[in-house]
Amino acid sequence: MVIEKINNPKDLRVLTLEEMNALASEMRECIIKKVNCIGGHMGPNLGIVEATIALHYVFNSPQDKFVFDVSHQCYPHKILTGRKEGFTNEEKYFDITGYTAPEESPHDIFKVGHTSTSVSLATGLAKARDLRGGNENIIALIGDGSLSGGEAFEGLNNASALNSNIIIIVNDNDMSIAENHGGLYNNLKQLRETNGTCACNYFKAFGFDYHYLEEGNNISKLIELFQKVKDCKVPTVLHIHTQKGLGLECAMEQREAFHWILPHTLDKQETKEPQPETYTSATVKYLLNKTKEDKTVMVISAATPGATGFTPQVRAEFGNQYTDVGIAEEHAIAYGSGLAKNGAKPVFCVLSSFIQRTYDQVSQDLCLNKTPMTILVNWAGISSADATHAGMYDIPLLSNIPNLVYLAPTNKEEYLAMLDWSIEQNENPVAIRVPADPLMSTEIKDVTDYSKLNKYKKVIQGEKVAIIGLGSFFSLAKQLHVFLREKAGINSTLINPCFITGLDEEMLAELPEKHSVVVTLEDGQLEGGFGEKIARFLGKFNIKVLNYGANKEFTDRVPIKELYERYHLTPELILKDIQKL
Amino acid sequence: MVIEKINNPKDLRVLTLEEMNALASEMRECIIKKVNCIGGHMGPNLGIVEATIALHYVFNSPQDKFVFDVSHQCYPHKILTGRKEGFTNEEKYFDITGYTAPEESPHDIFKVGHTSTSVSLATGLAKARDLRGGNENIIALIGDGSLSGGEAFEGLNNASALNSNIIIIVNDNDMSIAENHGGLYNNLKQLRETNGTCACNYFKAFGFDYHYLEEGNNISKLIELFQKVKDCKVPTVLHIHTQKGLGLECAMEQREAFHWILPHTLDKQETKEPQPETYTSATVKYLLNKTKEDKTVMVISAATPGATGFTPQVRAEFGNQYTDVGIAEEHAIAYGSGLAKNGAKPVFCVLSSFIQRTYDQVSQDLCLNKTPMTILVNWAGISSADATHAGMYDIPLLSNIPNLVYLAPTNKEEYLAMLDWSIEQNENPVAIRVPADPLMSTEIKDVTDYSKLNKYKKVIQGEKVAIIGLGSFFSLAKQLHVFLREKAGINSTLINPCFITGLDEEMLAELPEKHSVVVTLEDGQLEGGFGEKIARFLGKFNIKVLNYGANKEFTDRVPIKELYERYHLTPELILKDIQKL
Repeated sequence: MVIEKINNPKDLRVLTLEEMNALASEMRECIIKKVNCIGGHMGPNLGIVEATIALHYVFNSPQDKFVFDVSHQCYPHKILTGRKEGFTNEEKYFDITGYTAPEESPHDIFKVGHTSTSVSLATGLAKARDLRGGNENIIALIGDGSLSGGEAFEGLNNASALNSNIIIIVNDNDMSIAENHGGLYNNLKQLRETNGTCACNYFKAFGFDYHYLEEGNNISKLIELFQKVKDCKVPTVLHIHTQKGLGLECAMEQREAFHWILPHTLDKQETKEPQPETYTSATVKYLLNKTKEDKTVMVISAATPGATGFTPQVRAEFGNQYTDVGIAEEHAIAYGSGLAKNGAKPVFCVLSSFIQRTYDQVSQDLCLNKTPMTILVNWAGISSADATHAGMYDIPLLSNIPNLVYLAPTNKEEYLAMLDWSIEQNENPVAIRVPADPLMSTEIKDVTDYSKLNKYKKVIQGEKVAIIGLGSFFSLAKQLHVFLREKAGINSTLINPCFITGLDEEMLAELPEKHSVVVTLEDGQLEGGFGEKIARFLGKFNIKVLNYGANKEFTDRVPIKELYERYHLTPELILKDIQKL
Repeated sequence: MVIEKINNPKDLRVLTLEEMNALASEMRECIIKKVNCIGGHMGPNLGIVEATIALHYVFNSPQDKFVFDVSHQCYPHKILTGRKEGFTNEEKYFDITGYTAPEESPHDIFKVGHTSTSVSLATGLAKARDLRGGNENIIALIGDGSLSGGEAFEGLNNASALNSNIIIIVNDNDMSIAENHGGLYNNLKQLRETNGTCACNYFKAFGFDYHYLEEGNNISKLIELFQKVKDCKVPTVLHIHTQKGLGLECAMEQREAFHWILPHTLDKQETKEPQPETYTSATVKYLLNKTKEDKTVMVISAATPGATGFTPQVRAEFGNQYTDVGIAEEHAIAYGSGLAKNGAKPVFCVLSSFIQRTYDQVSQDLCLNKTPMTILVNWAGISSADATHAGMYDIPLLSNIPNLVYLAPTNKEEYLAMLDWSIEQNENPVAIRVPADPLMSTEIKDVTDYSKLNKYKKVIQGEKVAIIGLGSFFSLAKQLHVFLREKAGINSTLINPCFITGLDEEMLAELPEKHSVVVTLEDGQLEGGFGEKIARFLGKFNIKVLNYGANKEFTDRVPIKELYERYHLTPELILKDIQKL
């Protein structure tokens, strides 16, 4: 096995071309085995094996610096930079992360997980090199999909004016997570079809020195290309055409499905068993009906349609009532505001971690204009996710923007009632925090009138302790209620606030009468969040307030149980805190 | 006077070309007179007079819909759409705003003030029209400078895939607020120099139908062009070359200085009197020295250099230690993170209203990576500004991001000590909220060690009431301290917290011993802000907390005195609140 000889990039440089080709196959095999075992990004990594080998063969990392966009394609890079055991040894699979991580290796420059940033980051590295009088190569690697994010454009615009060495590798596999959208992709297609020679060229428009390579999975051709531009003195784009999922037939055929996979996807037999209903499937079912009933309802996603249940079939059913805008959340919001302003009913489905890419548009284009758009915030909450994909920050981010109504449903019926109300009303921009938990159903239609803003629901009237459980943490509030009764003989009051963005001042002002403590529970960061607003409002009353939620910190793949202990998010720990008062 | 006959766009259509040319001169005269009288955008409006006349001559507003980018160039549009008295009648100058405002007229579709959003908004309008089966024209007007913002790219990418009517007018005056930066502008130059015929064409790369007009201030040619594309069925770009500041010699010569002017700029004699020192001039002086001393210090702005004192002379002195990235705040942050990672010391000067365009990059590229970049947040605080340019939201926005150190200096010496500490340290991303008030000086060098994070300064130890005055509101805290002593005989404790992003838990935990009330004062929105964190922390103690700051709302040119009354930001009103407890 060639891979056994490779402990750092230097070891590559003594290999023959044949050995490097063998190495590529061995790396591919490791990646397929590991990703199928623990889940992860399959297609992007299989497509970039050869280019990564060639990069490390030609350039001298970590003096020469690679910046990977999103960095979900960094597995081959990790294998070649001293971390192969994380791929070859099953026991070490979890020792290395799925993204670049400077704490793992000096070959990883940034911790990255969001898209379209590599060119900007690399431009900074290059400019700092020039200020210092250094001479290393700075290389950014960016996929065609990531070019759809505005920051990638901003990066290209400034990188092209740098007047010194920066090498931008456009890894064009003709695919985002799903298919690409937007006029730019016709130009990339033309460039591929003309072997990079067509006169109208997006990259040349910026003034880049431009090179095209059709055989983007050919190590020898890649080495030749990289050697040609190594130490170049002008901003350079290398447009290479690669095959996503290369080496794994199903990943080449179903490029979207195999972009990122769950563990054991390759082992599975097709199951025909009915899957349990989820908030995702309930959303899809609702929107499919709604778009059929009302031809002005418009569904929007931003390059992660699969993550919100919009399979290719669902997208086809939506028809012209659906746009995937690419990795362009800013555009999605402004586009939605425009839609609403001209009589359509936009619904934007997005993940908590990505809504933060569009604060300014939510504030200015949407909320300042009070256009009635619906934003469904998915995958929100405290979790054991990578630090780059956490869902803990959307409450501080969104709930402090004037005019936005941010809702936190606690079960399916509430969720669908809120969703339908939001789409049909014409007064407010609305966001809904879709629970990330298993679906809860009351099986009783929710007839609440949500147009009466900021009315909390008092579910149980008790005394001494009032528990306010927001959204997905309403279930924890219920547990706490039971626990307090059983362990401390307290018949606590239980409140479902429904509204994240406003206080039910009337209900809150009455609490001090019968209660000495208010407990708030939110499935997100405390600082800037929901509970602090209650603490502020009650600051002038004779009542204690205990706020529970996440600390202000980035957490990286920390087990959820450990986080819940750390943040005192268990009935036992909360009771202890109450008893301390 | 032709202008007397114009009360709505229909009145234009009976004019001869000669009359329209006369009208253009009359409009120009009104604009010059008004802007010189009350201040505002001069150059952008003078450049777009003819195009606006031609637009309203050819298209049928408000059925056909215009979306102005930033909308700082909408004065001619306002004159033609029933609001000319706001320009011809001095007494009505303040009756209309400087940006498009739907509350003023159905001809204004959106309230806009931030940049690069028009194409996205218009794409939404167009798609909604298609869903409804409408047939109106949708027209976006965007300047060449605004093209540097990533969202403009995202908009172009999706507009070009629309497959129906959308007309994007690129108003190319070869100028942003200051000069343009980035490779894109070479392409625009090439297009201008070849009368739009060069093969490599940024807009054609997306697939737009593209038309160039060199004489962008020629009404007859503009009408001809607009008539040609009216009711077109494909996404179309009209690239028109206009003259910024046309008709006012000084505005044509000094295009940056006359982009936006203060009242009576045209009347002024050159004064040689020394201007008082300001936080802006202190910043410039410090950075000029610092960049000379240390060749790795790198100053960054995002298209508003003048607003932070970076005149053309200052920029020239910074030399290669300065980049204006264009209207690309996202790139600015990631670029800065890259600079810091490779040994440079980046300082990004930005306005409070615009830092909100880059939450995701501050979170992911900067704070998650803990790269030591310095962000100077200018023009922050409660003000009588337009809703689109308010400075009240940066504390909720920035201070809830993990790892960021956000500092609030209260005088010049503190500010410069914090700035120097920030540039020299290597541990934290740091933002500093530069006071927007007149400069205060103690004339005593500040020797605080800010590397000891979250240490508040107790300036006066008193009892009963503790006042925590953040940053620019520390002066209000001092006033309140004096007022409480004089009017209520209370010797209050006075605290300067310095740190927005962390609590001095030790100091706070001691407060209940001698105090029954804590008052927090912050020059920004309360919700998600500084005081709420104090209220949360003290929620479990026997002490009342009163938080003062702005309500969560958009305020649009409301006099500051009225806002201070509304928010109880006076010693009198605060004392009354304390007495109520």
